[in-house]
Amino acid sequence: MSKILGNSVIEFKNPPFVLGYASVGGIMEKEGPLGGNFDLLFDDPLIGQKSWEKAESQLQKNALEIALEKSKIAPKDVGVLFAGDLLNQCISSTFGIMDFQIPFAGIYSACSTVALSLIMASAFIDGGFADTSAVVTSSHYCSAERQYRFPLEYGALRPPSSQWTATASGSVVLGKTPTKIKVTKGLIGKIQDFGITDQNNMGAAMAPAAADTILRFFSESGEVPENYDRIFTGDLGFIGSELFVEICQREGLNIKNKHSDCGLLIYNRRSQDVHSGGSGAGCSASVLAADILPKLLSGQYRKILFCATGALLSPTSVLQGENIPTIAHLVEICGI
Amino acid sequence: MSKILGNSVIEFKNPPFVLGYASVGGIMEKEGPLGGNFDLLFDDPLIGQKSWEKAESQLQKNALEIALEKSKIAPKDVGVLFAGDLLNQCISSTFGIMDFQIPFAGIYSACSTVALSLIMASAFIDGGFADTSAVVTSSHYCSAERQYRFPLEYGALRPPSSQWTATASGSVVLGKTPTKIKVTKGLIGKIQDFGITDQNNMGAAMAPAAADTILRFFSESGEVPENYDRIFTGDLGFIGSELFVEICQREGLNIKNKHSDCGLLIYNRRSQDVHSGGSGAGCSASVLAADILPKLLSGQYRKILFCATGALLSPTSVLQGENIPTIAHLVEICGI
Repeated sequence: MSKILGNSVIEFKNPPFVLGYASVGGIMEKEGPLGGNFDLLFDDPLIGQKSWEKAESQLQKNALEIALEKSKIAPKDVGVLFAGDLLNQCISSTFGIMDFQIPFAGIYSACSTVALSLIMASAFIDGGFADTSAVVTSSHYCSAERQYRFPLEYGALRPPSSQWTATASGSVVLGKTPTKIKVTKGLIGKIQDFGITDQNNMGAAMAPAAADTILRFFSESGEVPENYDRIFTGDLGFIGSELFVEICQREGLNIKNKHSDCGLLIYNRRSQDVHSGGSGAGCSASVLAADILPKLLSGQYRKILFCATGALLSPTSVLQGENIPTIAHLVEICGI
Repeated sequence: MSKILGNSVIEFKNPPFVLGYASVGGIMEKEGPLGGNFDLLFDDPLIGQKSWEKAESQLQKNALEIALEKSKIAPKDVGVLFAGDLLNQCISSTFGIMDFQIPFAGIYSACSTVALSLIMASAFIDGGFADTSAVVTSSHYCSAERQYRFPLEYGALRPPSSQWTATASGSVVLGKTPTKIKVTKGLIGKIQDFGITDQNNMGAAMAPAAADTILRFFSESGEVPENYDRIFTGDLGFIGSELFVEICQREGLNIKNKHSDCGLLIYNRRSQDVHSGGSGAGCSASVLAADILPKLLSGQYRKILFCATGALLSPTSVLQGENIPTIAHLVEICGI
């Protein structure tokens, strides 16, 4: 049976292995620093579909398909699939993965969905509830803008603090067959609310959630930042990353030299017009599959923390003047 | 380690025990056949809040609070909370449970969220990932109508096939301390799509999903309907229940005499104007906590199946002319 370190850090007794992974992106992701690492890239934002929502479904479909192919696993042999996205009622997941006919557990945790899904998928392998499990999450710039802010046709201006929702999907397949990468620990986040109400400043809203999870992890697990090659946050962007490092510093945790943010890795802020950086449920997921897992496979990283962050707002809650509550979930992944 | 029966039926090796549960409802639920069994009922649909969404959050807050009190468990001792609802980005869960500061895993599976959450919460206890876990889900007639159909102020007519979204929340707390009720098996559903596009006929859309899960359960688990006191579906309503029993019959499974539907138990269709019956993520959850679990506790039931059903549509997917995909998740619960 797995151990619980401190109050809530899960240490997997039989850590699940990463059998395969895939990343799919759009034109902005292609032009970004990780463009060469994606498994599949589309120049057409509609990906031949009739709507942005269907295009996003197609990203998930492709990501899961490629991850399964690379894992040499047939859909019928996957015991459970954890998937989610940012859209109302998670429809890009539903329509993206339904044809695979894999038992489906829908996860909603905004941009942190990939980390929460990885914890669930790992727990299902470790606990013996599935022999193989899979994760896929996505976001699409155009479907997210229409959902959360304005239809693109309005041409609304985006303030400098805003982030660019990645048109991307990442998928990971986990199982019991030993490979060079395994998921060793997990920590489920608690909701934080520091009174931020500006949906164009998600980084500031999410930074306290990332800090809470990271601080709790180091306090309860007995680990220290020096044990890790890198500590990744999901999509705090430029502003959120600065705040995150500062909050950690104030609490006595210096991780500035270890920290990278997926929202800053996916785009080049100097040459791409993404303001504070990337975001979206497909941002950290695709960076995980396009950059982090390959470096664990090659031996460049031996042990990393991946802490995805999410803003649990809805257009309705924003219009009703509510704060933006946020959350961050964490997994520890090791190369062998 | 837990066993997988057939391809995907989870048999918990150390079945988690039900430490406590609670049901909260509104005026229609009070006037229904189970009214006397609810822990808390509100005559005011706004529950003193400023919006339907906040009122729904309050239902979750009360349900979780009462379930924890009855379980004699403090929020800080709950390892993980699985929660979800029908609203965009699951905001009634986020705002309902954030003050408890319990590690939070958001689940989206429409009206089947309670069953999927119970599977997750059980797996986390059985696998040793938490000592105590909790589940809470909700729906609210007014927030759901505004979200999915029309604002109530329009006075839109509802066709006879439509169902009444329950204003209700149900919560269950699970742990390792032996009690008289335990969760013994789980089965995660696969998405079904039989071409239904009418969002006022959810029962017809969900019946094939319920049948698929029930048929798969009996085919893979080695169990037969005679082993169960009752087999509950989530919220198929009158039309969906007839279809469900008929599909099972065609596939050689006669469960007519064992079957009850939570959407038909919660209201009196003769005296209450609910058309085809109740529905919503709070419907099956509150019936579970107000009727099924008490009867397992009293010994009236010894072994039941609880198969909650969900329609994975969004207003966007409906407007775009997509079909309504559906899913059903199942748990087996035993009295001792």
